[in-house]
Amino acid sequence: MSDDKKLTTRADNFSEWYNELVLRSELADYSPVRGCMVIRPHGYGIWERMQRALDDMFKATGHVNAYFPLFIPESFLSKEAEHVEGFAPECAVVTMGGGKVLEERLVVRPTSETIIYSMFAKWVQSYRDLPLLYNQWANVVRWEMRTRLFLRTMEFLWQEGHTAHATHDEAEEETRRMLGVYREFMEGYMAMPVITGQKTNSEKFAGALRTYACEAMMQDNKALQAGTSHNLGQNFAKAFDLSFQNEQGEQAFAWNTSWGVSTRMIGGLVMTHGDDAGLRLPPKLTPIQMVIVPIWKTEEERAATVEMAKRIADDLGSFKRPDHERIRVHVDDRVGVKPGAKYYHWELRGIPLRMEIGPRDLASNTGMLARRDTREKRPISFDTLRTELPVVLDLIQADMLAAARARVEANTIRERISYDKFKEVMDGPGAFVYAGWNGDPAVEQQVKEETKATIRVIPDLEYRSPEAPTTCMVTGEPAKYEVVWARSY
Amino acid sequence: MSDDKKLTTRADNFSEWYNELVLRSELADYSPVRGCMVIRPHGYGIWERMQRALDDMFKATGHVNAYFPLFIPESFLSKEAEHVEGFAPECAVVTMGGGKVLEERLVVRPTSETIIYSMFAKWVQSYRDLPLLYNQWANVVRWEMRTRLFLRTMEFLWQEGHTAHATHDEAEEETRRMLGVYREFMEGYMAMPVITGQKTNSEKFAGALRTYACEAMMQDNKALQAGTSHNLGQNFAKAFDLSFQNEQGEQAFAWNTSWGVSTRMIGGLVMTHGDDAGLRLPPKLTPIQMVIVPIWKTEEERAATVEMAKRIADDLGSFKRPDHERIRVHVDDRVGVKPGAKYYHWELRGIPLRMEIGPRDLASNTGMLARRDTREKRPISFDTLRTELPVVLDLIQADMLAAARARVEANTIRERISYDKFKEVMDGPGAFVYAGWNGDPAVEQQVKEETKATIRVIPDLEYRSPEAPTTCMVTGEPAKYEVVWARSY
Repeated sequence: MSDDKKLTTRADNFSEWYNELVLRSELADYSPVRGCMVIRPHGYGIWERMQRALDDMFKATGHVNAYFPLFIPESFLSKEAEHVEGFAPECAVVTMGGGKVLEERLVVRPTSETIIYSMFAKWVQSYRDLPLLYNQWANVVRWEMRTRLFLRTMEFLWQEGHTAHATHDEAEEETRRMLGVYREFMEGYMAMPVITGQKTNSEKFAGALRTYACEAMMQDNKALQAGTSHNLGQNFAKAFDLSFQNEQGEQAFAWNTSWGVSTRMIGGLVMTHGDDAGLRLPPKLTPIQMVIVPIWKTEEERAATVEMAKRIADDLGSFKRPDHERIRVHVDDRVGVKPGAKYYHWELRGIPLRMEIGPRDLASNTGMLARRDTREKRPISFDTLRTELPVVLDLIQADMLAAARARVEANTIRERISYDKFKEVMDGPGAFVYAGWNGDPAVEQQVKEETKATIRVIPDLEYRSPEAPTTCMVTGEPAKYEVVWARSY
Repeated sequence: MSDDKKLTTRADNFSEWYNELVLRSELADYSPVRGCMVIRPHGYGIWERMQRALDDMFKATGHVNAYFPLFIPESFLSKEAEHVEGFAPECAVVTMGGGKVLEERLVVRPTSETIIYSMFAKWVQSYRDLPLLYNQWANVVRWEMRTRLFLRTMEFLWQEGHTAHATHDEAEEETRRMLGVYREFMEGYMAMPVITGQKTNSEKFAGALRTYACEAMMQDNKALQAGTSHNLGQNFAKAFDLSFQNEQGEQAFAWNTSWGVSTRMIGGLVMTHGDDAGLRLPPKLTPIQMVIVPIWKTEEERAATVEMAKRIADDLGSFKRPDHERIRVHVDDRVGVKPGAKYYHWELRGIPLRMEIGPRDLASNTGMLARRDTREKRPISFDTLRTELPVVLDLIQADMLAAARARVEANTIRERISYDKFKEVMDGPGAFVYAGWNGDPAVEQQVKEETKATIRVIPDLEYRSPEAPTTCMVTGEPAKYEVVWARSY
């Protein structure tokens, strides 16, 4: 598709806008395999930066990486009753290998609790071997019927943390710690505000004691579950005989946690920041932070502006200046493409900064700097780029988070509304609605059927209303919890 | 298995030594899935450093990362005749998904040429879109009957480069360039000397025009093919209609290359450097570069030596001193484990340096530094660690390469020997044997049957003998090539 064709606007058709944008900004493409996508270099470059930042955070909290098999014997999945019920219908199954029918069929991992805890059982004997704090970067497969680029694909890339602890409380602390790491990453790197909290029983992970989640609001006011952290209790430890001798010399089962985020976050990034001209990428995750577009009429001008652009790019990106932050710069010196088309190209792809350098700018030693997020333009001296650009990039990062926060707040309903009003909101613009709930799963089910909205989380303390709701929005009965309702991806 | 039990020695049983060492040093473990292994944190830590170094080299040579689906429609594999013949018998096949039998069966990728070039065909229209220089980090599956930890596993981790070019010569240049990158990595990072050269037709990649390889010699004098780089010609381009309009306005097929290295390299690292006491890891790839063992008798001494050890570790590993290289240090302050057992533990795991700190060392401000590779011990002042240790680590890295080079040279036969003598060598100690070959595949086959040795490569110019062989070692006919024979993994 040509770059000149206008994107569908968000107001016209948000879902169409999203698909078009992902394809045209070259984040991803459809593949010949139903439900599987290809992550193109621009999208993968974002994923690499997400990985790097998260991996550093995992290591800083004491975790190590390891790698476990892609295939899981079918019998393993069945050892935890809730787990198999949740995942078996979604599995891809290998029945043939090396030209022969297999005796035991192999499931392509939908998640790795079973295989990992069976190995932990082999490695752990004593309380001295605990805790085990593992993480794995891997691909997983879930046989989804309705797929969406990044948001729901049959195969996706993710990380899955798996830990084993001596006590319930330690496991609970770990579960909460990693939820906090996710929140810090999503707000600090993705500039995507989230609310955190606990999932209700009907929405928790198959096999977990408790599931916590980060929920973000997209520009269509729908929720995206962006990361989850599970306290698995002793369910898997009992199923796989993951036991140890405790300090008192008794045999005890370990307590497990698991937690994961995936390439789905890239979809969240698009739907949090994108506008009708394309992506807007936060400086910390964008593969390219600034594109330089040299502008010329004559061949002589071309040589001079391109040379200056490359000199600046080399200097800003050099490893040899440890006294300054490196900046990722690309010079668009394509011949035969007009400057306007180049601006459009890089706007579509969400690059935070653009610097234009024309022949006259060489004399004044000054380029024209344009911000993608606010579209502000101003001259900037070549002499101060090294000190100014890191500040500008930090500012963009902060402004993007603030803008997203303001949007979420504007579409959050904290005052107590009636269930009729709630239906109107959900059928209309949508929102995050804070409301009382009596704790009855039947009410959850009823609301889901009537409005397609679900309880996203029982929010953590810091997100709750100053005055707790006293009655259930639906039944008028006394409220057990304050919950956040929304339609979701 | 307890750490105190002695390893089988290399002289006793090299293959047994290898398996024991991989398991006991906790690089990897067997999994419940036949032929699949678990890469444990110590092994994965090496792989992470391999990935980082290679990825930087790929990017420095203009490549970008992307990700393509795990599953390949069965029909895709069949589009290139040689390719399907080579890989179909090794495939794992998904026949069920979401509880239903699939209409078209999906092959778990054994390698990704077919799926990647089908996507390239969609993205490339004009010579302006070329070259495409892609790399993918991924898991692949090949249904192997006889597996060995790291060396041959059903699932393994690797990178596969895939590129498309406008001309044969550009593709050939890329193929050679990446072979060079592999060699530079293997010698510069793994301290594992290799010879490079071209594979004979019977050993080339299924679907390639020409295959080049890096071959390393293990301590049992067998060859390990450690990396390959293929000029695929237009074979896949024709099969997947990867064509473009060239500068002359004509439609032409692209020229492809692919190249890969895998977790097999970790096996190469073990068999290149390991000794009867355990692993020896090169400083550039080891997860831990120095372990500090505090030594104490009283609780007061414990507190003082551990505190000093941690202060040193923090300082050496700090990001806050960009003027010095960071060093990865671990403090082994386990209580209830004797110093001797700690030494043994870290020797087994191959950590290049150990520093012992006893109570008296605190007064003299001096620890005892032991090298894992040479077992030399000497005092070292705490005040000069920052400047001395990087030098020592560089020296170890260089010494390890030199020692491996000397071993390979000592087990290489460059003088012209008879085929009878050759059989003796191959049945006995083994070697890399440089010899003349008449170019006849039947001779290759005969030698393989009679001696289990194969032609590893037609070596590149720099490895060839000053005087080219004139006759074929086997037939006495005129030699067409000088080749390198060896038994191999």
